[in-house]
Amino acid sequence: MSVEINCDMGESFGLYRMGDDAAIMPHITIANVACGFHASDPTVMQRTVRLAKAAGVKVGAHPSLPDLQGFGRREMKMGSDELVACIIYQVGALKGFLDAEGMPLNHVKPHGALYGMAARSREVAEAVARAAKVFGAPVFGMAGTLHETVYKEAGLPFVSEFYADLDYDQSGALIITREHEAVEPAAAVQRVLRAVREGKVRSLQGPDVAVGSDCVCVHSDTPGAVDVAKAVREALGRQVR
Amino acid sequence: MSVEINCDMGESFGLYRMGDDAAIMPHITIANVACGFHASDPTVMQRTVRLAKAAGVKVGAHPSLPDLQGFGRREMKMGSDELVACIIYQVGALKGFLDAEGMPLNHVKPHGALYGMAARSREVAEAVARAAKVFGAPVFGMAGTLHETVYKEAGLPFVSEFYADLDYDQSGALIITREHEAVEPAAAVQRVLRAVREGKVRSLQGPDVAVGSDCVCVHSDTPGAVDVAKAVREALGRQVR
Amino acid sequence: MSVEINCDMGESFGLYRMGDDAAIMPHITIANVACGFHASDPTVMQRTVRLAKAAGVKVGAHPSLPDLQGFGRREMKMGSDELVACIIYQVGALKGFLDAEGMPLNHVKPHGALYGMAARSREVAEAVARAAKVFGAPVFGMAGTLHETVYKEAGLPFVSEFYADLDYDQSGALIITREHEAVEPAAAVQRVLRAVREGKVRSLQGPDVAVGSDCVCVHSDTPGAVDVAKAVREALGRQVR
Amino acid sequence: MSVEINCDMGESFGLYRMGDDAAIMPHITIANVACGFHASDPTVMQRTVRLAKAAGVKVGAHPSLPDLQGFGRREMKMGSDELVACIIYQVGALKGFLDAEGMPLNHVKPHGALYGMAARSREVAEAVARAAKVFGAPVFGMAGTLHETVYKEAGLPFVSEFYADLDYDQSGALIITREHEAVEPAAAVQRVLRAVREGKVRSLQGPDVAVGSDCVCVHSDTPGAVDVAKAVREALGRQVR
Repeated sequence: MSVEINCDMGESFGLYRMGDDAAIMPHITIANVACGFHASDPTVMQRTVRLAKAAGVKVGAHPSLPDLQGFGRREMKMGSDELVACIIYQVGALKGFLDAEGMPLNHVKPHGALYGMAARSREVAEAVARAAKVFGAPVFGMAGTLHETVYKEAGLPFVSEFYADLDYDQSGALIITREHEAVEPAAAVQRVLRAVREGKVRSLQGPDVAVGSDCVCVHSDTPGAVDVAKAVREALGRQVR
Repeated sequence: MSVEINCDMGESFGLYRMGDDAAIMPHITIANVACGFHASDPTVMQRTVRLAKAAGVKVGAHPSLPDLQGFGRREMKMGSDELVACIIYQVGALKGFLDAEGMPLNHVKPHGALYGMAARSREVAEAVARAAKVFGAPVFGMAGTLHETVYKEAGLPFVSEFYADLDYDQSGALIITREHEAVEPAAAVQRVLRAVREGKVRSLQGPDVAVGSDCVCVHSDTPGAVDVAKAVREALGRQVR
Repeated sequence: MSVEINCDMGESFGLYRMGDDAAIMPHITIANVACGFHASDPTVMQRTVRLAKAAGVKVGAHPSLPDLQGFGRREMKMGSDELVACIIYQVGALKGFLDAEGMPLNHVKPHGALYGMAARSREVAEAVARAAKVFGAPVFGMAGTLHETVYKEAGLPFVSEFYADLDYDQSGALIITREHEAVEPAAAVQRVLRAVREGKVRSLQGPDVAVGSDCVCVHSDTPGAVDVAKAVREALGRQVR
Repeated sequence: MSVEINCDMGESFGLYRMGDDAAIMPHITIANVACGFHASDPTVMQRTVRLAKAAGVKVGAHPSLPDLQGFGRREMKMGSDELVACIIYQVGALKGFLDAEGMPLNHVKPHGALYGMAARSREVAEAVARAAKVFGAPVFGMAGTLHETVYKEAGLPFVSEFYADLDYDQSGALIITREHEAVEPAAAVQRVLRAVREGKVRSLQGPDVAVGSDCVCVHSDTPGAVDVAKAVREALGRQVR
């Protein structure tokens, strides 16, 4: 079975465009669809779900902290219960559009600052897990972090991600910036293939670090995103687990 | 079978309180829960759904135009497709909380300006119907308006409402104000019993007008709302259809 | 004195980009800066005001109905008093950034649906006028509409605009779409020069209609906007009133 | 000269009510008016400024992190520059309403989580100072914290506050809860008089801690707030510095 490739999609908002979803969709197998709290709106969500359906792409929810202006990339201190409710709300909203198209919810993947906080904070990861439990949904995250520990403890299927277009530091953590840098498709392919075959990536500081790679993630708002997605997909298509 | 009584619930927001849901819940049989676009937030929605479950009250979605500052009581010109998506989003979000409690979605009832626009505009009523269809949900509305015509045309169960605490004009239309006026419980009971038995109410101008009364609606933000709900519920409990 | 040229600027939001303000700024003399209700955020507003200052461009406020998701292009029914307050809030916010740069407020120009409503509704135009009075600011609008009538009645300087990149119908009204169509620079120049010299433009239906042209407006979100602005500015620079 | 008494005002939003501003206004000398980011809206701001004017109460801005649902009481990680812009926006908006009434801006007082963060983080306090500098406004804060250090370094007048209705811990920090607890007016008066005369208050843990008291602060959303304000004002009126 070939390795799946996911991408954050549906991050436009009103007249604002983010990424070229129509161009990337053919090159991925799973879409993480924004739910209106860091990006997207009901119209964009519906359009994105339909685009995914037409391309045979599975759809999961990509919930965020409530911070449209900061694109969900600013940490906020929320209580556990309000965070759980905040995530259920977003996943439920996306499920409405999936119901409309007769599609199942594939998974939940926390976005941005929520993703980073869940990797480091047991309280935040547990909030993600409690929300995902409501929908019986697998959760995407970083292997070797509290994502893996906590979601598995909660009895949820955990899917480890390898990021084709982000750097890792020597602790194995992602380097996340407010706006993504351009990435060479060929370099991304090499990183991905090594991650999938050897479970390793070279960190920014030099030493290799261990990475999970149940699924490869590419970003739609990276400059050159379509070429990266296409190249990675082609390489993964030839790669059998 | 006794006549059901519904109330708009879950209209608090953050630290702001609107209505006394805990006090009213024992006196109603159906809650229309706000979905975050005119009132409510994820925490309030979750709390309200749990309160309803504990009281054995059925829960439907109460979607609105996107206008928190105006409490959904200001008309907005939205395109059909974006209105449909806007409603699916809200109903889906509420369904997330119902899923969490193992409760079914009882119905959809448009809120405020959306309710009024759907009564008068075929385009708006059709948007409500398209969204409700996704969830196979009955729709609450005013008999003799486009609510009834359009929802029935769409093959959706239609539930006509009689408002215990609002005035009707001689055309049969509701008089809706930004804030509700106080109502005498005894007067509300007389109006309700006549509506249920005779299908009529005296309009503000004097003449009787025909009204539907599949279900009686009371408001939680009317001064004295709990007493009105309690009195109406007691009267309806003794009233058999 | 040459005719001024204004452009709606600062319509990015968070990570979302709208128009290329840095590229257009050298070709205009007046910027209408969005105030956060249909577009923009505090960071974008500050950056835009500084960009204008560096280019020697005057800055006015471009307030809107509160509708970020609809880009201020959906009509809303607001009461007069709340509309006045809504505009004062936005103009005041922009003035904060002008104060920071030691720049005066040049004018107020209502945005999108608010602009269209003020042209047709005395109540809305009066609300715009009441807000502009607070700041003693001239108001930009369409000649021959309630913009002109009401702002002048209020004792406010009125500046009539000619749109270089939008079509007019035979009643003299603008054809406004949610997203703007591409325009040929040469065609825009011809329209602008005729408007300035003869006070006329050919309507979509064929007949000429009278237009005001105290100031020429170009849009930054029209495809090819920079080329249009540059061509119009060059043509107007050689044109003396 | 008697000690001034300030209160956070204008924290209603749309139909939601918070505090009884009309009842408290006669008992205070300075109002900190919310600017729409944690509470308030343009209509509420205008009404509150007019209420203050009628009562001869001075008005300052009460800017917040952008978090209406959390009432500005959840910490967020914002960059310095975006925080400065965020505060300028809010103070500018309030100044619009002050301009409309011919009133000067009295001061700036950061709200909630922003207040707490500025007391502990030099970066945040400097952002507050940079924004206040634009308006040449004094800043209210806690003596002996970075509020005092940083605002004074920036050359801004610093006004130390003593909280009549909140507890202090033994480090001199305020105990801030999402919702305020009821306070006995007589107890508040005793605390206030001791703070003003001796510069001390008894901490929750027992030992006295030093406090500043250039100005006394009462809250409008504390149960019994009007009685507390009235009692404190009367006591302070007889108290001469």
